[in-house]
Amino acid sequence: MEEQYTRTEAAALTSRKVGVGEKVMLHGHIQSIRQLGQLSFLNLRDKSGQVQLLVEGSELMEALKIKDILPETPVKVWGTVQAQPNPEVHLKALEILAVVSPAPVEVGKNAKIEKLSAGALFDYRPLTLRNEKVRAIFKIEAEILKAFREFLGKSGFTEIHSPKIVATGTEGGANLFSLDYFSRPAYLAQSPQFYKQMLVAVFERVFEVGPVYRAEEHETTRHLNEYISLDFEMGFISGIGELIALQQELLKHIFAHLKEHCAFELGLYQAVLPVIEAPIPQLELAEAVSILKEKYKWQSLSSKDLDAEGEKLICRHIFEETGMELVYITNYPHVIRPFYAMKEKGGSGSGSFDLLFRGLEITTGGQRIHQYGELKASMEERGLEPEQFNDYLMAFKHGMPPHGGLAIGLERLTKQLLALASVKQAALFPRDRNRLTP
Amino acid sequence: MEEQYTRTEAAALTSRKVGVGEKVMLHGHIQSIRQLGQLSFLNLRDKSGQVQLLVEGSELMEALKIKDILPETPVKVWGTVQAQPNPEVHLKALEILAVVSPAPVEVGKNAKIEKLSAGALFDYRPLTLRNEKVRAIFKIEAEILKAFREFLGKSGFTEIHSPKIVATGTEGGANLFSLDYFSRPAYLAQSPQFYKQMLVAVFERVFEVGPVYRAEEHETTRHLNEYISLDFEMGFISGIGELIALQQELLKHIFAHLKEHCAFELGLYQAVLPVIEAPIPQLELAEAVSILKEKYKWQSLSSKDLDAEGEKLICRHIFEETGMELVYITNYPHVIRPFYAMKEKGGSGSGSFDLLFRGLEITTGGQRIHQYGELKASMEERGLEPEQFNDYLMAFKHGMPPHGGLAIGLERLTKQLLALASVKQAALFPRDRNRLTP
Repeated sequence: MEEQYTRTEAAALTSRKVGVGEKVMLHGHIQSIRQLGQLSFLNLRDKSGQVQLLVEGSELMEALKIKDILPETPVKVWGTVQAQPNPEVHLKALEILAVVSPAPVEVGKNAKIEKLSAGALFDYRPLTLRNEKVRAIFKIEAEILKAFREFLGKSGFTEIHSPKIVATGTEGGANLFSLDYFSRPAYLAQSPQFYKQMLVAVFERVFEVGPVYRAEEHETTRHLNEYISLDFEMGFISGIGELIALQQELLKHIFAHLKEHCAFELGLYQAVLPVIEAPIPQLELAEAVSILKEKYKWQSLSSKDLDAEGEKLICRHIFEETGMELVYITNYPHVIRPFYAMKEKGGSGSGSFDLLFRGLEITTGGQRIHQYGELKASMEERGLEPEQFNDYLMAFKHGMPPHGGLAIGLERLTKQLLALASVKQAALFPRDRNRLTP
Repeated sequence: MEEQYTRTEAAALTSRKVGVGEKVMLHGHIQSIRQLGQLSFLNLRDKSGQVQLLVEGSELMEALKIKDILPETPVKVWGTVQAQPNPEVHLKALEILAVVSPAPVEVGKNAKIEKLSAGALFDYRPLTLRNEKVRAIFKIEAEILKAFREFLGKSGFTEIHSPKIVATGTEGGANLFSLDYFSRPAYLAQSPQFYKQMLVAVFERVFEVGPVYRAEEHETTRHLNEYISLDFEMGFISGIGELIALQQELLKHIFAHLKEHCAFELGLYQAVLPVIEAPIPQLELAEAVSILKEKYKWQSLSSKDLDAEGEKLICRHIFEETGMELVYITNYPHVIRPFYAMKEKGGSGSGSFDLLFRGLEITTGGQRIHQYGELKASMEERGLEPEQFNDYLMAFKHGMPPHGGLAIGLERLTKQLLALASVKQAALFPRDRNRLTP
């Protein structure tokens, strides 16, 4: 049977790449079944999209056991392409590949999946991920990663994989998940920070895509306890300008790539990609704070940093002033940044920055201290014991060039692009304060 | 100063892409300094390679503070290209970017680094990674990953990132690192197995590059407690033949990519890439065992599986018989494979396989059980409680197609390619029974 039929996919049919009258074979899951007298309409989902299948006549319906098919049944089908007016396949044969039970959620109906509570959306994750609109989120993430690696690869960066089981935290011990490592205490890495820095002296430019862990107690729409961090670090820089310039080009490349490869998926969310035609505006933190206070009567518990509300308002301001949906906040006080942040010469600031996108921080970055003595002193100022960081310090004692880098939270970037309600929706299997499964 | 000089890299000079007489700027680390009367010879390492710098005359040597330069000092240099006969740069200016202390290892000398004990090699990892030959290992790994993703992307696979913090192990509890997750017990994932399977019903074909964790007590040259697993899983297969065929093409693509992009790095190890012109030979396990017993008088503690010695001997046999350096061992008894392995129809075997390469297993794979009832029964046969796997089973209860996949250990593949003494050398910062740092 199979020899006379050409293997094809739903998208090839719906985009009319396969001609009417052709004999085709498809495989996928049946999402829905409708009976209309002597006709059965089946909706088939495969990795490329969806297409309608038609079974004509009660005899064929019986022979193909259409009655036994429940939503989500995996099948192979054989038939002839017709278009009336939309392309569909008139079935000749159908093979049921697995017996299924009635599903607790209607995978094929976007509106129903969108109405699920967050609890149900994640409890039924093995099923809700099959929904076209939920699945689209992760197609987009896969393409973001492809574009990220492509751009950095062409810019002379080498991919690295640093260990996630570590002996010390990068920030001195807060928010670490602890672990029993053959009866020794260990932790899950909060970031590849120390490793990517050390590797600047090896490869000059490095990037990593990998999981990072934050044992933060708070449950918000902006936090995950395990997320994918897109990190890069580069050497021989003269300041943060080079980091910002590179990230701008990187983001332009990612957005152009998504425009080309994810039009359908973005369309499902009516998502509009940000336009970066001019340099992304930059505001010093102090400047941002005074605008917030004057224009929005913003009040914050910590006057030293922006809170979630402050991030939203400053983005609104920048959008009103410039039409840009991104803004860099620069020159944070050193005291609220990690010890390794480069200090402002003769001031209390730091060579670090955040990038806000549509009201949410999606990147933290900056230049780092590269002189051994200065780095040790910065640790001591924070009450950290340099001896605890001997391996990290080794790289500096024996020659580190000026360097810096940044990290982009994959799920946050995706959340903002698609205007998702929570960053958790952008994780295949999210981990939060209360969720450890599926 | 910088305006008149063109930024270049060591490899561009040594490959004579930059003409004699050109004014160039480079940055990197000084690996060694030799004085010869009125001449100083400096070896500069950058991300592309190494090149010799020359400083002529005691006046210039003093002005550039050549005396203050220790190995590993990061510098910027400006000079003119000469070739006598090898390309070198006659310096005009040099900027020292960081003060360094004498290094405990000689990064610039391959022979010295190779003579280090394993302990020193890893204790001084931030420095030993800078050595050209050590660094080459990770350039090769980065290119393996690039080729892996490129091939699978073109073959319709979607990249995924599954959680590494999990509530249950994939094999029923052995060899798991345990974790305190907000006062709940959790574990580090041994493999993305369950997740990649569930995602077959979402994307049909998926791959993941990420860390996996094995709390195995044994310390060998073949084991790491944290390593990078290259996983793929694909749906709608009719048997393991499709998995093996795809992996063969994948390996051919990876080796061709390395040949093109890593000739220098492979050359440092005198590594010869395996040739896959004919299909990789396949042997059933029982067949392999009887060859081992007859030909090599092989004796194993467990007659059910190959041990390290058995893997070496069977590879030797296949090489003698066919000239191939790879061999698939198939049809393992189901009882020694995970519960999710597809069972042989009417037998006690399984639709699973290992791939051995130059005497070492680098891949385990196979077809999986996709029928809900069968999977549940297989759990029960092993004494596992299906209720503990409810999330995983959800995917099967509601429609999983026939599927299978495999995993390649990145460090093992690299070890075999370069004939490294231990798989640990192929991890940037290895984690073993006794090593948690750097």
